[in-house]
Parts: sequence; C-alpha cells; structure tokens
Amino acid sequence: MNHPPEAAAPPSRMRPVDPARGGHRPLGLDEYTLAPGFWEERQRTNTDATLAHCEEWMERLGWLANFDRVAEGTTGPDRPGWCFSDSEVYKLMEALAWEHGRTGDPGADTALRRLTERVARAQDPDGYLNTCYGHGGQEPRYSDLEHGHELYCTGHLLQAAVARARTAGPADPLVQVARRAADHVCAAFGPDGSQGLCGHPEIEVGLAELGRALGEERYLEQARIFVERRGHGTLRGERVPSGSPYFQDDVPVREARAWRGHAVRALYLAAGAADVAVETGDAGLLAALERQWEHTVARRTHLTGGMGSRHQDEGFGEDWELPADRAYCETCAGIASVMVSWRLYLATGDVRYADLIERTLFNVVAVSPSTDGRAFFYANPLHQRTAGGAPDGEAPSPRAESGVRAPWFDVSCCPTNLARTLASWQGYAASAEEHGLTLLQYAAGTVRGPLGDGRTLGVEVATGYPDDGLVTVRVTEPPPGPVVLRLRVPSWARGAVLEEAGRTREAAPGFAVVERELVRGEEIRLRLPVEPRLTRPDPRIDALRGCVAVERGPLVYCAESVDLPAGADLDGVVVDPTVPPVRDGDRVRLSGAVLPPDAAPWPYGAAPGQGPEQGKSGPVEAVLTPYHSWAERGPTAMRVWLPVLS
Amino acid sequence: MNHPPEAAAPPSRMRPVDPARGGHRPLGLDEYTLAPGFWEERQRTNTDATLAHCEEWMERLGWLANFDRVAEGTTGPDRPGWCFSDSEVYKLMEALAWEHGRTGDPGADTALRRLTERVARAQDPDGYLNTCYGHGGQEPRYSDLEHGHELYCTGHLLQAAVARARTAGPADPLVQVARRAADHVCAAFGPDGSQGLCGHPEIEVGLAELGRALGEERYLEQARIFVERRGHGTLRGERVPSGSPYFQDDVPVREARAWRGHAVRALYLAAGAADVAVETGDAGLLAALERQWEHTVARRTHLTGGMGSRHQDEGFGEDWELPADRAYCETCAGIASVMVSWRLYLATGDVRYADLIERTLFNVVAVSPSTDGRAFFYANPLHQRTAGGAPDGEAPSPRAESGVRAPWFDVSCCPTNLARTLASWQGYAASAEEHGLTLLQYAAGTVRGPLGDGRTLGVEVATGYPDDGLVTVRVTEPPPGPVVLRLRVPSWARGAVLEEAGRTREAAPGFAVVERELVRGEEIRLRLPVEPRLTRPDPRIDALRGCVAVERGPLVYCAESVDLPAGADLDGVVVDPTVPPVRDGDRVRLSGAVLPPDAAPWPYGAAPGQGPEQGKSGPVEAVLTPYHSWAERGPTAMRVWLPVLS
Repeated sequence: MNHPPEAAAPPSRMRPVDPARGGHRPLGLDEYTLAPGFWEERQRTNTDATLAHCEEWMERLGWLANFDRVAEGTTGPDRPGWCFSDSEVYKLMEALAWEHGRTGDPGADTALRRLTERVARAQDPDGYLNTCYGHGGQEPRYSDLEHGHELYCTGHLLQAAVARARTAGPADPLVQVARRAADHVCAAFGPDGSQGLCGHPEIEVGLAELGRALGEERYLEQARIFVERRGHGTLRGERVPSGSPYFQDDVPVREARAWRGHAVRALYLAAGAADVAVETGDAGLLAALERQWEHTVARRTHLTGGMGSRHQDEGFGEDWELPADRAYCETCAGIASVMVSWRLYLATGDVRYADLIERTLFNVVAVSPSTDGRAFFYANPLHQRTAGGAPDGEAPSPRAESGVRAPWFDVSCCPTNLARTLASWQGYAASAEEHGLTLLQYAAGTVRGPLGDGRTLGVEVATGYPDDGLVTVRVTEPPPGPVVLRLRVPSWARGAVLEEAGRTREAAPGFAVVERELVRGEEIRLRLPVEPRLTRPDPRIDALRGCVAVERGPLVYCAESVDLPAGADLDGVVVDPTVPPVRDGDRVRLSGAVLPPDAAPWPYGAAPGQGPEQGKSGPVEAVLTPYHSWAERGPTAMRVWLPVLS
Repeated sequence: MNHPPEAAAPPSRMRPVDPARGGHRPLGLDEYTLAPGFWEERQRTNTDATLAHCEEWMERLGWLANFDRVAEGTTGPDRPGWCFSDSEVYKLMEALAWEHGRTGDPGADTALRRLTERVARAQDPDGYLNTCYGHGGQEPRYSDLEHGHELYCTGHLLQAAVARARTAGPADPLVQVARRAADHVCAAFGPDGSQGLCGHPEIEVGLAELGRALGEERYLEQARIFVERRGHGTLRGERVPSGSPYFQDDVPVREARAWRGHAVRALYLAAGAADVAVETGDAGLLAALERQWEHTVARRTHLTGGMGSRHQDEGFGEDWELPADRAYCETCAGIASVMVSWRLYLATGDVRYADLIERTLFNVVAVSPSTDGRAFFYANPLHQRTAGGAPDGEAPSPRAESGVRAPWFDVSCCPTNLARTLASWQGYAASAEEHGLTLLQYAAGTVRGPLGDGRTLGVEVATGYPDDGLVTVRVTEPPPGPVVLRLRVPSWARGAVLEEAGRTREAAPGFAVVERELVRGEEIRLRLPVEPRLTRPDPRIDALRGCVAVERGPLVYCAESVDLPAGADLDGVVVDPTVPPVRDGDRVRLSGAVLPPDAAPWPYGAAPGQGPEQGKSGPVEAVLTPYHSWAERGPTAMRVWLPVLS
C-alpha cells in the first residue's frame, strides 16, 4: 500500500509516551474521545473531584507551602511532609496539564499556572529545585542519595513538564522550570559530575521523555547514564531489610532475570530503561526488559495484574510467592506496570503487553479510587481478612493497608498518580500504524487519527464493555484505499467472534484484523465472551493451592463478608467448582458451603476428614462482586481466591 | 497421703521461675542432671562454644566497652550498637549465672564477675543503668520510651540477677546492682512517678521474678502497675506500620482476645502478666492469658510451635495467616513462648502447656544454633525458597532471614537468648508436686528432688528420645509410702503404652500416672510411638491448603534441595499421601514426583489439568530430615509443607 500524503492534520503529540522509533504511534488524548461508560465515568470523577481533592489536601498539609517557604527563605529542617512530597505536587501538575489538554478546561489551566508560579519561585538559580534539602538549615543537596528522593522528585517534575509541553507548548513556564532542573541534573550527575544515583528510579523516565518532547539529546543521554550506572552495588541498602536489590542496584538492568526489590522502583526503572533502549536502538537492553517482563508475569504477578508480594520493603517476592492476604499490589506499582507494558507494546507490537495493561487497569487502577473520587486504596490485596474500622476523614492515614479507602495518606503517592493516569487514559488505549489503527482498550467513544501514511481514519465505538462483550465499531471517516483495522482479542476471550462485511468468523486471542477498504457507516462487531469463568492457579503458588477465582471478561471478582448470611465467617466459605458460576447483573453466584467458625485446639492433625468440614452447612450461594468495586458498601472482609469444597 | 517431714534437703531454688503459689514446683537445675543425648549435646555445646562466642562478639563490637565508656565519662551519641545492646550483655550474664550454678564451673563464675564489675561501674548513683541514654551528649533518660528500650534492658538485668541470686546468693554484686536498678524503676515509674511504659515489655517479668527472688513486694507491685498500665493507647506507634497493637498497647491485657503485634513483645508481656496474676491471685487475669494462649495456639501458631507470621513488625498475623515462606518465627519468640507456657503450666498443671513447650524446644529453639554453637538462625521460616549464599563470618548479619545460620546479627537478640535458655533447660523440664514428681520433657539423666511433703524421690531416665520412643524410668531413690509419678504422654502420641509392675497398659495423651509405693531399682517404661506420620493443616490456613507435613515424635521434618535429584526444583516436588512415609535412620522417605520447572506465560488458567503437572516425573522418593537440622550441609532451599500430588 502506498498512498500520497493528504492534507490531513499532523498526528497529535498529546500523549505521555512518544518514541522516535517503532511501528506503533500512541494516539493522542485528543484523538480518542470517551462517551459514557466505565472509563469515562472514572475520568469524569477524576475531573470533578480528585484533582481538587489532591490540591486541597496538599495545601492543608503544607506540602504546597513548602515551595513558598523555600522562596521566602523561611523553610528549615521542620518542613512538613516526607522528603518526596514535592513529587505529589508534580504528579498533580501533570494531571492538570493532561486535563487541560484533553478538555480545554480553563480551570485546570489556571490551577496549573498557579502551582507553576509557586514551584518556580522555589527554584535555585542553578536549576536545583527541592524543598527538603539544601535550604535554611536542611541537610545539604544530595547528602542522602539512597533515601532522599531528590532525583525522583525531579523526574516527576520533568514528566509534568512533558505533559505541559505537549499540551501548551515548550514556551510554558513549567517547561522552562523543568528545562533548568534537567540541565542542573545533567551538570551535577553527568560524566564529569557525581557518579551517584538516586535510591528511587524515576529521573530516567522523566529525562528520556523530556528529551523526546524538547528534542534534547543530552537529557536522553543522561537517562542512559543513570540506567547503566545502576546495578553495581553503590546503594548498599543498610537501612532496608532487602539491601541493594531494594533499589535494583544488585544487578545491572541488562543482566537481571526478573523484577525484584521495591516494586514501584523496579517498574519505574524498567520504564526508563525501555525508553533508553528504544531511543538508542539498544536491542540487547530491550530484550532484557522483555525477559524480565515474561519472568515476572509468569511467576511474580497476582491475578489482578498487581505486582508486589511483601509489605516489608513494599517489594516483589520470590517466584511463586503470591500471598492473597499479604499481597502488596500498590496502586503506584500497577500504574508503573502499565507504563512499562505500554512502552514494550509500542516497541514490539506484542499484544500480551496490552493484555496485561487491561487486566491492571480494571483490577489494580480501578479498584483504588472510591466512586466519589475522594478516597483511595493503596495496597490492593486479594484477601482482606478483617473488615476493620471506618477511615478517619480528617487525618492522613498512616497505613497502606485497610478494609476501607482513605482520603489521604501519610505517604500519599497513589492519589496523585491515579489523577495523572486517569487524566491521560486515552494515551494507553490505541495506536496508529503506517496504514491502520489498533484498538487496544475498549470504551465507548470516538477514535480519529492520522495514520503513518498520512491518511486519517475515524471510527465510533459503541459498547457497554466490560459489562457487555459486544464492541461495535462504526466507520465514520474511512480513508480512501485499503487500511488495517485491528481489534485486540484479549487472551481470556476464547470463542470471540468478529462480524464484518456480512461475515462472521472466529477471532482468536491476539488481534482480529480487518484489512480492506472501509465504507462509511459500516459496522464491525467484535463479540467477546463475558460469561463468568472459573480460574485456577499454577500448582506451585502455595498461597492459592486448592482455590478458584471467578473472572468475567477483564474483571476479577471477589466475595465480600457483607454478602454472607448473618454469622457466617468469610474464612469458612468453600465453593463447589463443579457447579458453573451464574451471572446475575454485575454479580456472579457460586454454589458452596460455609464451615462452622469453631477451631480445634491445635490446627494440625492426622486425618484429612478431621477438619471442621465435618460440620459444614448445607449448600449456600456465594455472591461475588467485581473486585474493583469492593468495600463500596463500607468496611468488609473480602477474598478473590475461594477454597474449593473437598 | 500424709507423711511426717523427713530430714531431706530443702527444695532447690535454682530455677528461672519460682511462683509462691500453685501445686507445681519447678525442679531446680541441680535436681535434673542430663546424660548424653539430644539436650545434653546442645547444653554442652552452649557451655563449650556459645557462651564464649557471645562474649567475643560483644567485645569486638564494643557492646561491652559501652559500659566502660559510661564509667569513664567518654561515651556519647556515637555509641556502637543498637539502643538495646545492653540487654544482650545481661542475657549472657544470666546464661553464665545458670551455667555456674548448674555445673559449678569456676570459669563461668569468673567471666560473670568480670562482666558484673564492668556493668556496675556504669551505674548512676541513683540506680539508673543504661549506656545509650543520659550520658555525655546522649538523649536524656526516658526521652523515647516507645522505642528506647531502657526498661526492656533493665528487665534483662533483673532476670540475670535472679539467676545469680538463686545460684550464688542475694549478696552477690550483680544482685546489688539489680536491686538498685529496680529501686530506681519503682521510684521513677511508680504511682508518684512517670505514668509512661516501655515500648518493649520485659521489665514486668524481671521485676516480678526479682521480687520473688528477694522477697521484695514493691517489685511485684511495680510489675503489676506496668501490666495494668498497658493497653490504653499511650504508645501511638507512629513509627511502626501496625501502630499501638505492635506494643500490645491497644487493648488491656485482661481484655485481649489473642496475641497480636510484635511477637516477642506480646509473649514477654504475657509472661510478666502471668507472674503478676499468680502472685496476686488474680484469677481473671490468669483466665485472660489462658484464653489468649488458646486462641493463638489454635489459629496463629505454626506447626513448629513458631509464633509470628509477618516480617513487617516481626509480628503475629490475623487468624489463619500462617505462611510457611514468610513465617517470622523468631528464635526469641519461641523462647518467650516457652516462658509463657511454663508459667501457665505451673499455675494450672494443664498438660497442653508442656506439649507446646516440647514442640517449641525441638523445632524453634533447637533449629537456631549450628552444631558448633557458633552460628544461629533468627527467623526460622517453614519454607526457604532460595538457598542463598554463605554467611559472612566476619561481620554481623544485617538480615534476620537467610538459608544459612549467621555467627552474629546486627540485631543480635537470639544468640544470647538461646545461651540463657539452653543453660537452664532443666528449669522447664519437670515439676514436683505435694506427693510426687512429673516428668514433662524427656532426656536421659537423673532427676532427684524433694516433694512438697518433704520426702525425696530420685529416678534415672534412660532414653534415646526423640530418635527412640522408649523412656525407661528406673527408681533409684524411692521415698517411703505411696507417691505419684507422672509421665507426660504428648498429644501426638496416640497408642503410647506404659509398662510398670509387670503390667502393660495404654497411656492416652495427657499424663500416665503411677500412684503407689515405688521399689528401688524397678523400671517403669513409657513407649511413645515415634514412627513418621503425615500431618494436615486446618482447611482455613490458606498458605498450607493441599499440603502435608511429616512429623516423627516431637520432631517436624522438612525436605531440602540438597537431597533432590540434580536439576530438580524444590518448588516442583509433590508427594503422594496414600503411600505411608518410611523411616530411614533419622530421615524419612516419602513417595512423590517432581514437576518440570517450566512455567506458563500466565500462571492462572481455566482447566485444573492445564498446569505443569501434565509433565511430572515418574515416582521420586523425597528424603526428609528433621527440621531442627536443616541447612547443616550448607545453604539450601527447604520446605516443611509439601504439596500433595493431585
């Protein structure tokens, strides 16, 4: 296919990731407009509630005033907030930039300009910008690289500036602040500077993308230097139980077998390394990241897509260490996993990365915010043993774990990370290729964008997904000549069917491809099977042996104690996997029984039949709800994996 | 039975616990002499190696010199060691005191006197004694009650003094130091003093026992005050993830349902509370502790007797949260559990407490030291996923977890705790009653002690226990008239048999009782069944579902990767529970198979048969070793609970 370029609009650059190479161009936020549905609802709540909620909390806690105090010379070692609180401000600024870009909302623009002014005033003349170090009796700059988070904060500043540069242009004051900060980092940590590295990766991804946004090779090179500098035991980790692996500083990125240590750190690093690999054409580095993704997804990832198995060090566990109850699937790690998978999809076109993105978006990202957008889950376990109490709405929660969403946290990385991710959801949902378009994530809306060959393709997507499995793609703006329209068929969707041009054909997991000239108004229908299904774990996952879970479409389901008969204990629920699960609206019913709550004096014994199953109830229906909506009816015990009746 | 008192020696007071009330008097260390066997070997290694090993490390690291520096006025905030390192010195001193008392070894006496001099010189005129606070630029006394461990250290000083008072008399300088320290605590924290309490319980048990040893009611009263003062949220726990429950300061002792929070803290507190309950006749408090023991043993205790399910906060988990791999069965928590169970046995006579002591001694305490007594396990998981590397013999280990024993730790509470426990093993093994004697823990040796009625009973125990189940009790010194000789029949010993006076009878779990006049030279034989047996977990323990373990007598067994065929992965071993386990010396053989090491790209799927079991090997014999001896052949992966072939 070869078509002369037409007078079409240039591709949008309004997107979080914009690689210079690769056959897949991410669509811009303005090229995918959501209509009412699952993600539109969450994006709207983010717009209407979460953005202001985050700003209010950070104002109340003094995290914003920290910038004013540096500007006024009144800060000191008593500064409120953790050393990384600046980064929360930057993540909110990134969210506001995407919000304004996507919607044109002048309120978001004003809020962002106001924040930019306060941040800019705190910047030192040489570009250094941090409210926790280097001013008024504080510890000196870079005096605690291992735990001080200075370059981490700067990385988030750069990501905010990327969003602003791509939505308001490179002359914006925020972009100028970020440019000065990036220049400072390059000078301070370049080949002639300090050979140190930050305990929390993030500067890599920030530098690489700002380099792409501004066409500044030095930033990309500094990102490359940081990626290569890690893995040589510089960060000893004497203050964390897992030591150097906590920081991924035990093994160089290109040699590591799997992700390990602190999950958010590992995944932010991988995202930055993917950017470096793509921009520098480093096939070895890219292959290493693909291997790490494969190993981690096969052996260290929860059913929800959640990553992290240890509260201690908020870290990955060993292979097969996937406890449902003590899972530590930090919302930020889910977001970081999407960041990594998205980069690997763009670099390779492999559908598996988009599959994991969908799983993670629906079951890690979507579970975090409350329906009103003003409270959040943080650790996202797959099993909450006790309901716990109601949250304190007036104080930041000191804990990551609880059976209820909290309005804010002492370590409050997740709310602002959600805000920027929901504001830019479209940036991870579809791609344009040389002669076509790929729909990766399904939501009602319109998708319209220039192809690589310069032609434009526009479609309207009608769907009730994920409640309903029918995705109807109506062609609204067909280009002349044949195009390639690809619809992702998720790996769970065995038996999917594609209807187009009067024909119906099976659509195997991967991509359903329509390659022909399209006709305006024609409808292409993908029917994904979203009946509930039982899922079993690999027999080597000790924590899940003898259990099943229920999934429906991309959604993981769970049982909640509020749905049990009075007096029954969620620990005692067992299900019968020989009776197929039955859908009931957005819920699923399973046949099972409830064990009595008594316990033997000693819980280990000789005969398999000596357990309390002897006294189990008659058949009981277990009612399951989508995991993403658990605890919306108040504190509750919950479990995704349900023991099988024996 | 009523006998006139005879001219017998008074009961020994050479014992760690000496309640004023209750029908069971613990035997003194000099009333139970070990002959070669399991515990004699460990006690001898403690004598020959561990005591000097501990002193050498503490000298090398400056933990001993901390006392000199306070005495010389040269200490400061740069003092080496954690704030609780004084307590390690005191635990070693306690060990030396018991050692000297038990053996009369002048070397132990000299070592203890030398340490006492150094410690005594650091005591302030008002009795305060701590090398981390209150001197030369250090933080002031009691300025961080939550985490400073000052009263915790003092508690260990008092326990050391108890050992010395009961083996060398109350005039010993160490006892005088402790008396001054206890007087200071009573003044500083009594009704008219600070109403604070220490973040780490231990002062309670120290004050109560020193009160008993010296007949000083004030100390007991202060212990009571500390017990009652806890549970009202004074310790907020803002620096620990679990908050107030970490310190057991969320609920008063007499109201709590189960042990929770930091395991060693919970158990030391319970031990002190038991002392208070017994001495003050507080039946309600005692009943509360019994309920907590029951709940915790039924739902929060590992097969080994180990307590602790979370690395984070080194804490108990929720009910049924008992992960084999992330078990945190700290050696010190095992010792503390023995301390609690022993006090509850003495108060109630209930055999279940002695059962748990046996399980814990063989499978938590005995696993910790290496055969040479110079390296130690700390966290004692029931599943080590990766073998890991060899320990660094020259530096303290910064980690509690590893597949090999380490010579010393940065936080090195366990080695000295083992030293004092092994030196006083006899103090937890038997009791004398009004008219008889009870053998609770079996080891070859001689037991001889006055009964409550003043008569003396002496027996000689011959046994190869736990390798062999035959325990032969030869009567060497029968008193005139009938006596009650009780032999504990462990709860696992179904089918035990007692042979005495020419008769053989079944001996059900509990106590086998011989109540009659004994004859010099006669033998009473208890035959305990020590063939290997399969054990299954309560179905509500998610982490163990679908697994079996092997036990033999009191010993828990485990599989080690060093015993697998080359290339096989311990994660892939599955066993066939329908084939009975076979004993082979001190090992046990199980029939099973090995799954191939491959993994599917995504470890969750639809069909039960789609797992890698499809490619499992032909029958393989799994060779199991006693858990207490794992990793004695170098670093190895290990697991106690083995998945069942499905």
